[in-house]
Amino acid sequence: VSLHDEILEQPAVASRFLETQAAAIDALAAALRDRRDQIEHVVIAARGSSDHAAIYAQYVLGIRHGLTAGLATPSMVSLYGADPSQAHTLVVAISQSGASPDIVAVVDAARRQGAPTVAITNDTASALAAAAEWTIDMSAGPERSIAATKTYTASLLAIAALSAALGDDADRRALGSMPGAIGSMLELEGAMASIADAHARADRALVVARGYEYATAREWAIKIKELAHVFADPYSAADFQHGPVALVEPGVPVIVVVRDGPAAAGLVELLGRLRDDFDADVTVLSDVPEALAQASRAVPLPPVAAEWLAPIATVVAGQLHALHLTRARGLDPDAPRSISKVTRTR
Amino acid sequence: VSLHDEILEQPAVASRFLETQAAAIDALAAALRDRRDQIEHVVIAARGSSDHAAIYAQYVLGIRHGLTAGLATPSMVSLYGADPSQAHTLVVAISQSGASPDIVAVVDAARRQGAPTVAITNDTASALAAAAEWTIDMSAGPERSIAATKTYTASLLAIAALSAALGDDADRRALGSMPGAIGSMLELEGAMASIADAHARADRALVVARGYEYATAREWAIKIKELAHVFADPYSAADFQHGPVALVEPGVPVIVVVRDGPAAAGLVELLGRLRDDFDADVTVLSDVPEALAQASRAVPLPPVAAEWLAPIATVVAGQLHALHLTRARGLDPDAPRSISKVTRTR
Repeated sequence: VSLHDEILEQPAVASRFLETQAAAIDALAAALRDRRDQIEHVVIAARGSSDHAAIYAQYVLGIRHGLTAGLATPSMVSLYGADPSQAHTLVVAISQSGASPDIVAVVDAARRQGAPTVAITNDTASALAAAAEWTIDMSAGPERSIAATKTYTASLLAIAALSAALGDDADRRALGSMPGAIGSMLELEGAMASIADAHARADRALVVARGYEYATAREWAIKIKELAHVFADPYSAADFQHGPVALVEPGVPVIVVVRDGPAAAGLVELLGRLRDDFDADVTVLSDVPEALAQASRAVPLPPVAAEWLAPIATVVAGQLHALHLTRARGLDPDAPRSISKVTRTR
Repeated sequence: VSLHDEILEQPAVASRFLETQAAAIDALAAALRDRRDQIEHVVIAARGSSDHAAIYAQYVLGIRHGLTAGLATPSMVSLYGADPSQAHTLVVAISQSGASPDIVAVVDAARRQGAPTVAITNDTASALAAAAEWTIDMSAGPERSIAATKTYTASLLAIAALSAALGDDADRRALGSMPGAIGSMLELEGAMASIADAHARADRALVVARGYEYATAREWAIKIKELAHVFADPYSAADFQHGPVALVEPGVPVIVVVRDGPAAAGLVELLGRLRDDFDADVTVLSDVPEALAQASRAVPLPPVAAEWLAPIATVVAGQLHALHLTRARGLDPDAPRSISKVTRTR
């Protein structure tokens, strides 16, 4: 089983997830609704790619459910012995392996305080699943590749499914379209491979997005770093314009993701600046014609049922780009140096 | 007034801050103590360098005061119109200019909900100061350089002063030693300049720390990016070992900050791995002999009164390194390309 196989497996994983986990997620949503007046905040504990799923959760919970969600800093608990108050807090832990001691420590501490806890993991027999009150099974099957792909989209889908279960029928219908939306992204493989070829000589890159898709920029960049060993820096468009735009120069490709929605106008403006003031090599992935028109390389994105669900599909283009960039740089995506599948950091 | 002048000005700014703001901070601490049972969480709104002050606040408030502090995602409010619940929440906004509309929007929304709000700003006549219930004046004087230095250390000092005001006499005494501690760091200029010369040909770099000093790694990296246009990637040691350690290769200098404390042992272990498995070019700044012993380039750090205060001093070494790296690369630290002092992102 190669990384490529696991990328291709994602529509099937998504279908299986939605089928097998629907009942568990409905039950969790009902329990959370019962305890809604005790939940004022959400704390999310994660590391690596799961951190980017946590960022997605921050936007989904904040925009769609009015909940302030913050990312836990696990070392505070595991190293410094802090026991921050989890009053009125829902704690969500995201970990493929469920084996990271510092993530488990955050859930243990929350549980001792009586806070509701949810684990999103691909191993229901893990320490994390045992520690949490509720568990959502990523249902992704064994992930052999060291770089996470199908467990990343499954994590996002878990968060989206919980949001839809707390939402209305339109949300559930939109959610049901995601396996197909992920499948449509696979058709971009040829386009992403040829862009990767064009990027093969760069050892630095920038990935920019805003709003929901900021999680995609983060995940895309880390895939490029881990696999292709290119210094890819992800930015929210707001922070990018504040300073790091200074990094744009010849030999530094810029990738910008623009989805139709409230963040689009500002990104189109940024694209104009990148073209006029920087003469930058800009790849644009978008379903917004004005954004595509400003690109050096334009990749039209298949539409999705709702903006808030888009990152579950969009990231697949990033996975394909990172895979082909790795090959184009003469490296083996199935034998990356120096990363291990399970983080055991304390 | 040059960037170099403003770096050198920091001990004086710190002294002035502590003298002029003591009464206001004591009053704020007293008010927060009175409302302590209404405060279960802290949300911090910031952008750019202030984001790194927010990370410092996360650790200080979590470890020393048992408060979960999360970073706001301002675009949720400003772009998507979300109005997340701020029940039982203290909202702290950090902005040198106080002019960023999206940061002001977060404070406005919190205030409408009746949440206590604090602005840490260098402009007490700003929109942010007007929006917040309480204001702490960075008292840094006009910052002419586009790269923030003295307002960054003043922001950290503001957070530390608030923590000390909520703490005991030993905390206040330790705080009082910080102008001197910042002054001691200035004596490292020669060492940092010669390391910068050695790094002059690298267009990529890694900065690693953990715990309180993670904020320093983030701030150091952004200074290198903005001024020297080097892709400097900051990591918490835990995340670094999970994947990005793959980026270590010849031509990529690694900078590691190790302060005596709970995070030191893990960092010393990482340093051993970087030396034995990667033959990496590693600069270590530390007050821990075991860490310095593993370095290609060792910079002994002057001791500080308490680990939690160390980032206020340590970052000065990073500022000096970034300044000299910029010059060594033939660029002008007083005329960086493409960054503007005030972010007006919505």
